[in-house]
Amino acid sequence: MNAADRLREQGAAAQAASALLASTPTETRNHALENIARALEVEQGPVLAANEADYRDAEADGIDAAFLDRLLLTPDRLNDMAGDVRRVAALDDPVGELIEGFTLENGLDVQKRRIPLGVIASIYESRPNVTTDIVALALKSGNACLLRGGKETLRSNTALVALVHRAIGEAGLSTDAVQFVDDTDRSLVDVMLGMKDQINLLVPRGGSGLINFVAENATMPVLTGGIGVCHTYVDRDADAHMAASIIYNAKVQRPTVCNALDTVLVHSEVAGRCLPEIATRLNDAGVEMRCDHRALTILGPDAGLNTVPAQEDDWGREFLALIAAVKVVDSLDDALDHIHTYGSGHSEAIVTEDGGAAERFLNEVDAAAVYHNTSTRFTDGAQFGFGAEVGISTEKFHARGPLGLRELTSYKWIVRGSGQVRG
Amino acid sequence: MNAADRLREQGAAAQAASALLASTPTETRNHALENIARALEVEQGPVLAANEADYRDAEADGIDAAFLDRLLLTPDRLNDMAGDVRRVAALDDPVGELIEGFTLENGLDVQKRRIPLGVIASIYESRPNVTTDIVALALKSGNACLLRGGKETLRSNTALVALVHRAIGEAGLSTDAVQFVDDTDRSLVDVMLGMKDQINLLVPRGGSGLINFVAENATMPVLTGGIGVCHTYVDRDADAHMAASIIYNAKVQRPTVCNALDTVLVHSEVAGRCLPEIATRLNDAGVEMRCDHRALTILGPDAGLNTVPAQEDDWGREFLALIAAVKVVDSLDDALDHIHTYGSGHSEAIVTEDGGAAERFLNEVDAAAVYHNTSTRFTDGAQFGFGAEVGISTEKFHARGPLGLRELTSYKWIVRGSGQVRG
Repeated sequence: MNAADRLREQGAAAQAASALLASTPTETRNHALENIARALEVEQGPVLAANEADYRDAEADGIDAAFLDRLLLTPDRLNDMAGDVRRVAALDDPVGELIEGFTLENGLDVQKRRIPLGVIASIYESRPNVTTDIVALALKSGNACLLRGGKETLRSNTALVALVHRAIGEAGLSTDAVQFVDDTDRSLVDVMLGMKDQINLLVPRGGSGLINFVAENATMPVLTGGIGVCHTYVDRDADAHMAASIIYNAKVQRPTVCNALDTVLVHSEVAGRCLPEIATRLNDAGVEMRCDHRALTILGPDAGLNTVPAQEDDWGREFLALIAAVKVVDSLDDALDHIHTYGSGHSEAIVTEDGGAAERFLNEVDAAAVYHNTSTRFTDGAQFGFGAEVGISTEKFHARGPLGLRELTSYKWIVRGSGQVRG
Repeated sequence: MNAADRLREQGAAAQAASALLASTPTETRNHALENIARALEVEQGPVLAANEADYRDAEADGIDAAFLDRLLLTPDRLNDMAGDVRRVAALDDPVGELIEGFTLENGLDVQKRRIPLGVIASIYESRPNVTTDIVALALKSGNACLLRGGKETLRSNTALVALVHRAIGEAGLSTDAVQFVDDTDRSLVDVMLGMKDQINLLVPRGGSGLINFVAENATMPVLTGGIGVCHTYVDRDADAHMAASIIYNAKVQRPTVCNALDTVLVHSEVAGRCLPEIATRLNDAGVEMRCDHRALTILGPDAGLNTVPAQEDDWGREFLALIAAVKVVDSLDDALDHIHTYGSGHSEAIVTEDGGAAERFLNEVDAAAVYHNTSTRFTDGAQFGFGAEVGISTEKFHARGPLGLRELTSYKWIVRGSGQVRG
């Protein structure tokens, strides 16, 4: 059998497994997750050995340090992954949840109940913890999954999936419920995008090239996201110290992720008061600031604060690095316009003591997550209490923001009668 | 400007209007709907005249009676349409509804609130009441809409939209919120399918040719449905009289719609007892029964009951007429298998006094709506209390079953803090 046919067989096996999973008791699915968590803690040897081989090859290929860090597994990281799986296991089972229920005048009992989507597929890169996060969320929500990781992590993922298969098999789940594509040939992505009868939802995770390609070519529903051009707007009535602290956190705490800050907008009436503290803190962390001319004038082009003039394409750019664009705006409306033009619909924040300005910002900004007086870094499944996340959607259809258990479900209408007919 | 550019301009105008609509007070949107309802009652002249012209042309073109009936508007039907609009106005406003809310350990207040999707587009055929139903649901849920009706109803729809524009303009809404495509050139469908930046959700309504074409070629999210191959399974423990009554209703009350019965499945142990009553009632209503050999033997091929042998392609066929396929099965499992193979995921029913069999059927059948001891004809937005419906989805992604107000919404995460940063 060729690789494409084998992938399609994996999809069919996942579909068949998903029909069984949907009616598997909560306890069995939780048991499977507990087994995975324990195995991640006590059977680390083969996974660490496989990861070491992946790491050495990636290092030899001259892959950059940030990538290598994402790829690396350690005993502590495996324990953290076990923690994620246990947190998912501890959540309420979404399967069968009553979303809505009512009795019609004719006595019909109508219930809208949550059901699994079926097969969740993901194409993702580098970080091996994605593998166990998606497995945990899929199984807990009664879905099978079909996973295709990056070629640099093939051995790590293969070892993790072997561990997962043993763990869920011992809990009585079919190992068909977790399918891993161990052939990293690029052409298999195209095959996967055509498998609309086997895949109910596809979540691509990675760079914008991959995500756009998947969005344009997939035949099944896709949730795209993970690209965040995130603004923090410092309003006229902002607390300057809070603004600096929030911006520092949003930019510096983990600059390589999608919810990190890209652009600072500052109201012109407080720019003189707020910008120096912001810039000093960012400069101390090694952040390059790409400033419009007013910000540059306030900060002093030669004050040694790591400022450079912004270019037009710095607005709306996701830096994923210790770089921030900085712009002075004349009003909340100008800030809203800027975000409307350049935002990616991911995470946007306002810092202000003016409740009215905050409410306008929270209502009018069209993004998955909008923040008042806090950091955009909180857009994250674990932070929101979802245990983990399959991804972060920047779409408006089906699900928006972190994708946890409920986001992997659909529903059906269940109607119980006693012979009623329609008049 | 050519027609394609004009359509794209309509899309852009709808997008701009939708941004305003999202923050329009509930009262203004309800006022607009009340104005539409009143106009449908008191300004009937121009609409009836336009409809008469549409009707005459369609009649002259030799279009069939069922189609003509769907096209026809009368004073009573306009009053019914006004009633639909008022029922939608009376529903709770979905915009801003709190779906979920919690406080994180760090004090962050997190709310998941409902927001409009943006622009709802529909391509639909014949029935002019679809126009006002979609307008009402879209405006009430804070969405703009872009409508393309069938060419046979162009004058009727144009008159209805003129009425809608006056009505909503007087309520202070922008008439840009309701866009009607008054050029019925087929090529504009292709243009519309490419307008993913202007259309947030597209709902095609019509025959399977249109629906499949839209599903395969649209660049934006699409909800398809309206095609129902609906089964009613008469279980071993069915009440024979109830079964006949439900099957009669599901097949005969309105045979041309998607939730009408297509196939009767009867357990072999009760087929001898149940089938004659079912067949007699269906026969009296002029229903042709396409029977498998066991059903034919029970009913007697020459008993004058309008039975013929079923052909293989009668299983899984949507008849939309006074025709039903009839099959004897040996068990609930066989019935579930048949529905799994031939069902379209729309509406499926079981008739039984056995609670365990009913629960298995309701849980295991994968369809938008599943019924116990009642008729599949209830899958309908108005019946479910939605006031009206934009369509009936047979997909699992985003929304399933009748599409009312909530199904036209997305959500955003709103997070309020007091300076919290991520550790």
